[in-house]
Amino acid sequence: MPEIDTDAFLRDLHDLRAIGRFRTGVHRPTYSAQDMEARRWLMDRLAACGLAPAIDGVGTVLGRHGGPGPHLLVGSHIESQNEAGWLDGALGVVAGVALARAGLPVDVCAFADEEGHFDVGFLGSRSAIGDVAEAEIDASRNRTDGTPLRDALAAAGLEGLPRLRLAPERYRGFLEMHIEQGTQLEGAGLRLGIVTGIVAIWQWRIVIEGQQDHAGGTTMAERRDAGLAAVRLLAAIDEAFPRVCGERSTWTTGRIALDPGAPSIIPGRAEVMFQFRDVAVPVLERMEATLRALIRESNRRERCTARLVAVSRATPALCDPALMGALTEAAEALCPGGWQAMPSGAGHDAQNVARIMPAAMLFVPSVGGISHHWAEDTREEDLALGVRVLGAAAERLLAG
Amino acid sequence: MPEIDTDAFLRDLHDLRAIGRFRTGVHRPTYSAQDMEARRWLMDRLAACGLAPAIDGVGTVLGRHGGPGPHLLVGSHIESQNEAGWLDGALGVVAGVALARAGLPVDVCAFADEEGHFDVGFLGSRSAIGDVAEAEIDASRNRTDGTPLRDALAAAGLEGLPRLRLAPERYRGFLEMHIEQGTQLEGAGLRLGIVTGIVAIWQWRIVIEGQQDHAGGTTMAERRDAGLAAVRLLAAIDEAFPRVCGERSTWTTGRIALDPGAPSIIPGRAEVMFQFRDVAVPVLERMEATLRALIRESNRRERCTARLVAVSRATPALCDPALMGALTEAAEALCPGGWQAMPSGAGHDAQNVARIMPAAMLFVPSVGGISHHWAEDTREEDLALGVRVLGAAAERLLAG
Repeated sequence: MPEIDTDAFLRDLHDLRAIGRFRTGVHRPTYSAQDMEARRWLMDRLAACGLAPAIDGVGTVLGRHGGPGPHLLVGSHIESQNEAGWLDGALGVVAGVALARAGLPVDVCAFADEEGHFDVGFLGSRSAIGDVAEAEIDASRNRTDGTPLRDALAAAGLEGLPRLRLAPERYRGFLEMHIEQGTQLEGAGLRLGIVTGIVAIWQWRIVIEGQQDHAGGTTMAERRDAGLAAVRLLAAIDEAFPRVCGERSTWTTGRIALDPGAPSIIPGRAEVMFQFRDVAVPVLERMEATLRALIRESNRRERCTARLVAVSRATPALCDPALMGALTEAAEALCPGGWQAMPSGAGHDAQNVARIMPAAMLFVPSVGGISHHWAEDTREEDLALGVRVLGAAAERLLAG
Repeated sequence: MPEIDTDAFLRDLHDLRAIGRFRTGVHRPTYSAQDMEARRWLMDRLAACGLAPAIDGVGTVLGRHGGPGPHLLVGSHIESQNEAGWLDGALGVVAGVALARAGLPVDVCAFADEEGHFDVGFLGSRSAIGDVAEAEIDASRNRTDGTPLRDALAAAGLEGLPRLRLAPERYRGFLEMHIEQGTQLEGAGLRLGIVTGIVAIWQWRIVIEGQQDHAGGTTMAERRDAGLAAVRLLAAIDEAFPRVCGERSTWTTGRIALDPGAPSIIPGRAEVMFQFRDVAVPVLERMEATLRALIRESNRRERCTARLVAVSRATPALCDPALMGALTEAAEALCPGGWQAMPSGAGHDAQNVARIMPAAMLFVPSVGGISHHWAEDTREEDLALGVRVLGAAAERLLAG
């Protein structure tokens, strides 16, 4: 078994936590000063572990092992959601550093913008598998402030750098360690999750057009209230989706924007961010069909017009059985009976890398299931156990 | 009958429309550069009509007639909602100028911030009847950007000026001409509305606390989704309110803010701006009781906690019978059969002035009922008819 220095691993995690610190979490949106500082910090660490670090034209960092193969690719992402947790993404990258420090022949990567601050979605990992055209980069903007991606890349000093393209023949596979972002492990009293597959997220924008009017002068019968039409549609989704969803499906309304959004004005326009997730395409398709039927029904019933805009429709990814097997053996060896197989409800870079090479993921518990929030946390003994299992699994795969 | 110069009146309206022009409407938020320019423009006009203009410590402009009484007070407000119409408020003020120009012994007023850019609510007219304490001004902020009212007053050069206090014994009453902001007149083919009373607006903030979480890692059963709880509550209001409301009641959700408002994060907090309106206090009280019962029911059923914050609870105002009578006689004389009596669904400064002197309002039609939007408009012949009826009614009241 490789000697993983778990003290150095935890020290790395805390060092990275200091970059862009926000309360007990971090604020490192993609290409912000804090994010670029974290990428430079990572390149220094990779070099210190004997890897050759480089940053590419979208900000993805790859540390390359100089020795002979076989190799594994290990990593995740390093930017964070706004004012979010210290482990999401960072954990998988720093775990890669720990494996490299132990002398394992791994390349370590931090894919850019897994968190989707820009509207490409999974920019780094999709670019690295050859799935992002230049035109998509030209058209992309920051979802929060509208900054063009090209401008953000230039401001971060990345303009003109070549984009990384992963060579699948170099690797036996890709391993991504991550926090669970849920309470399944904690609730079951388990310390490790072997991921079986990654759900696909189908993301939608629902746009409802009504008529902006004064809230006093316009009778209820006369109104074309886009906000009320949105509320009724979302209530109908809430009723209908439990009848068509899968066992582990989720659906989420993340934002409801009423225009103009003032107390005495009937909203003339409503825009809803809606998404659903599942590992099975037939379930996803059933949910889409239900959503479309509810929108048709809304347009029959309401004096407002609703339309559905598809923002993204990813493909679910299944994890590689051999990689899962190695993770399972390592988990059982180091923590007998303390693990379970489970799907990932969140999207991860691994789902993209899985399209060109075998990929698998290892989960550690999230305290209270909290994630995408600065209070996100995992117990240090679980972090240390996770990286030791990851190292043991990597050793098996490289020896096999 | 007084000679109202309707050409000069329409010219004034168009001159004022040019200040802060936005498309075919105006953008003159309270104490903005455009708003202060409009107030200076008004003072020049008042002086040109022989009145003595002054601006007070909250920006209310009063032009005082120098001759002997009896007097009437005529006016409205001059700032606008954001990117809104050219007539809302401006019409009643410019109508006052027209009456003064015709030699009628009127004082003309433009009350500050009827539109409620600051959270005092009806700052100018409430201050002028002695209803606003200094502490309320100290605590008030701009609803959009949070600027303290004191800072805005200082920036507008109003700091330290005394506040106007209306002397009710000086006036036979207050007349406010206004656009209808609805389609009752247009729909009935009528050109004038004699307002019988002004609805009260009861404005609420509904705050729902849940748990912010990752939209993938948290199962539907585990979630405490504040946004979904808000949707269910608003759908319940939509079902229940028609059973308890009055014939002309309205209720409106103007804004739904989900925090943090990102596509892949379960909202941990929702904040809803909700209001209802009626002319009858028992109806308002019935709607409040229903709202409170629905919130209790939500708190029994949901895993989130909803609470109700009262933002403002105004008192409905009835118009003065003698003033209404004079407006009715003038309307019937100048446009036989072309008017109706009707309540005002919107709040107006007249509801505050009515607490210290007789008050009444005259409505002219809104094209398509559009209001609080830059497309707001009224036909010029209806504007001209309205100001002639106002002048004729004023003459009757001053002679009586």
